[in-house]
Amino acid sequence: MPASLRQRLAAELVGTALLLCAVVGSGIMAERLAGGNAAMALLANTIATGSALFALITVFAPVSGAHFNPVVSFTSSLSWGEAAVYSIVQIIGGLAGTAIADLMFDLPVFFASQKVRTGFGQWLGEFVATFGLVGLIIAVSRTQKNIGIIAAAVACYIAAAYWFTSSTSFANPAVTIARSVSDTFAGIRPIDVAPFMGSQIAGGITAAILFNWLFPKHDHD
Amino acid sequence: MPASLRQRLAAELVGTALLLCAVVGSGIMAERLAGGNAAMALLANTIATGSALFALITVFAPVSGAHFNPVVSFTSSLSWGEAAVYSIVQIIGGLAGTAIADLMFDLPVFFASQKVRTGFGQWLGEFVATFGLVGLIIAVSRTQKNIGIIAAAVACYIAAAYWFTSSTSFANPAVTIARSVSDTFAGIRPIDVAPFMGSQIAGGITAAILFNWLFPKHDHD
Amino acid sequence: MPASLRQRLAAELVGTALLLCAVVGSGIMAERLAGGNAAMALLANTIATGSALFALITVFAPVSGAHFNPVVSFTSSLSWGEAAVYSIVQIIGGLAGTAIADLMFDLPVFFASQKVRTGFGQWLGEFVATFGLVGLIIAVSRTQKNIGIIAAAVACYIAAAYWFTSSTSFANPAVTIARSVSDTFAGIRPIDVAPFMGSQIAGGITAAILFNWLFPKHDHD
Amino acid sequence: MPASLRQRLAAELVGTALLLCAVVGSGIMAERLAGGNAAMALLANTIATGSALFALITVFAPVSGAHFNPVVSFTSSLSWGEAAVYSIVQIIGGLAGTAIADLMFDLPVFFASQKVRTGFGQWLGEFVATFGLVGLIIAVSRTQKNIGIIAAAVACYIAAAYWFTSSTSFANPAVTIARSVSDTFAGIRPIDVAPFMGSQIAGGITAAILFNWLFPKHDHD
Repeated sequence: MPASLRQRLAAELVGTALLLCAVVGSGIMAERLAGGNAAMALLANTIATGSALFALITVFAPVSGAHFNPVVSFTSSLSWGEAAVYSIVQIIGGLAGTAIADLMFDLPVFFASQKVRTGFGQWLGEFVATFGLVGLIIAVSRTQKNIGIIAAAVACYIAAAYWFTSSTSFANPAVTIARSVSDTFAGIRPIDVAPFMGSQIAGGITAAILFNWLFPKHDHD
Repeated sequence: MPASLRQRLAAELVGTALLLCAVVGSGIMAERLAGGNAAMALLANTIATGSALFALITVFAPVSGAHFNPVVSFTSSLSWGEAAVYSIVQIIGGLAGTAIADLMFDLPVFFASQKVRTGFGQWLGEFVATFGLVGLIIAVSRTQKNIGIIAAAVACYIAAAYWFTSSTSFANPAVTIARSVSDTFAGIRPIDVAPFMGSQIAGGITAAILFNWLFPKHDHD
Repeated sequence: MPASLRQRLAAELVGTALLLCAVVGSGIMAERLAGGNAAMALLANTIATGSALFALITVFAPVSGAHFNPVVSFTSSLSWGEAAVYSIVQIIGGLAGTAIADLMFDLPVFFASQKVRTGFGQWLGEFVATFGLVGLIIAVSRTQKNIGIIAAAVACYIAAAYWFTSSTSFANPAVTIARSVSDTFAGIRPIDVAPFMGSQIAGGITAAILFNWLFPKHDHD
Repeated sequence: MPASLRQRLAAELVGTALLLCAVVGSGIMAERLAGGNAAMALLANTIATGSALFALITVFAPVSGAHFNPVVSFTSSLSWGEAAVYSIVQIIGGLAGTAIADLMFDLPVFFASQKVRTGFGQWLGEFVATFGLVGLIIAVSRTQKNIGIIAAAVACYIAAAYWFTSSTSFANPAVTIARSVSDTFAGIRPIDVAPFMGSQIAGGITAAILFNWLFPKHDHD
């Protein structure tokens, strides 16, 4: 019996919440323990985020597809109406996850980030990061049947992109919004959110065009 | 021929002992080598624990299910009587593992930890950590057949949770007890054990309710 | 329907470009954050490169074989004409990837590296690195069907070789050229490129001889 | 067509040589770059060793079983005569690998290690390390068909054991001998080799007894 819409939305809600717990929470822990060593802090944040992605995709993919990301939902086979509902739930889940992370570390539930993330280089970073992520998901969802390989590919890609993009690869509008309300390691100033989201959407559309040609739907279905 | 109860209990005993060897032993090594760099010590402890979990689950799952954790046993398909026997063996195995780790590093077999781990944030951390672990195990045990993917998902989840929960994710009453009798990196004061265990049980029950609805048994069996 | 030549070359182009984004970009990020800690910088570079390789091979292998490397193409089952075309596209893709990495980090598109990489030890390093890589690819392409295992084996091998060879394992003429035009962490002086490429070709040929004997084609096809 | 004895011995020779390249070479690189940070050096050594093990087992298992270790050969299904020949080849391969690593880093081919590794705690460490390794190999060789899972389990186990045993887990007589002839990070004084080997053999025999009961041959063949 396929999952009901209610189950699918619950999966996106809980999954995105746990993803943000992982991203924001590990950022707080890493910054506290690293004592100013920025590379060590990002390394710990990377390992925690990549590992959490593998686990969460493996868990929730059979129910909802484990998108956790509006750009992924809108470039998937969902109808635009479904993608919109997914997106709203992802944003709510993301905000809830940040709140839980803040509470675990005895911080205010929400407090606006002061972290400046702006400029052409970082916008190009978000374009590249989201281009790669959406392209990867189109490719593996059509060529791989094994959820473990799909989850590992996404997790590895994001782990790499935390380091190879100048923006540390947000690549996800729901995650970007959720990271703006915690003034901690993983944060982003609310004013910097919109340009990041614009770059992410542009990268996702570009990837959808290229990878739908490289991996035509009828070849692999 | 399925494993006998004696074989299954031996698997839980040896597996939990080796898990605690890994958690406590790598904590000692990490602290000795890290020279006060707390992030480096936790990173090494994380990699050792996650790697050991992958190996131990792959080895022992075909015999006993590789629970190593009373909360997992009580939320599994075991009868409560079997879960109780599993739990006792897990606690004994965990204590033996701590003792072996201490002996390998020329420390007293048992010496009470002085490490303070308390407060609302950390209790919420244990609730979240165990909620995620039990939910993950319910999900993957019903949707995945490949023991490698199941083992990788558990290992990755715990690796992430070492960083994203404020309590560094004990998520296991047998492990919590065993970590209280070694005053080393991974330790916890005996007086802090009971509230951790309460949070773990609450997180496990909450996960069981939610994930049994998300992944109904009859759908996947 | 198998991929057309145009699709296959596009896959090699985009794949090699993203690989160089990962290698060069993560080198820049790592050096900036590591504050002079060379081991930390190489560790971050290693994790990013290995993770990117896993993701990129999983994505592009079904289209083009995911060579990204002229030595791999010339020791594969491609005709020499096809291998030559692949190589040209790989070099162009690699240069494009370096340029994108430089732009993301607000650096000049191309600027010659000053990093000295020369001497017998490093040339032996490139011989060993490429010997192992080409041997591994011949072996796994004949014995393994699962693209996840193949991708993981390549990624793990390169991650290890970043540390165990004195040259940090370029093992790829297209990558070597592309890394000569960015004066950053992953760079190599243009004058040092030719001897590296010679060692790589010698290592690849030696591996092809030995591993074609160890893994005869007719046994596994 | 199964591999000939000549092919199998070549696989053990080349595989063990590359394993020692990885262990010794990454130790040299790690120590040079880490600038006295012992935890960082061991972490890099761990990642390189674990990654190399995954790649080498995946490559050579279909030919020779990828033992690379006399204790593994003698507790496998090989006859004692075959195990003896395997062991000799493994020792020669290991020595060759150390020599190549030294040459890559512009060091003397062989020079006796001065690194003291002795005492009850470390001998217990070698006992535990080899017990776990041999037990794991007996278990997964009988319960798992997927070489990727087997290789990942061994690699993860050794990565963990580098940290959780006081001896950093040699767990292999051929590796122990080979590490005694390079006075670098991974070295061991020649005089400390024999007790390490004794502990390894004791651990291997103990594991063979316990795990042959837990995983009876006739159940899984």
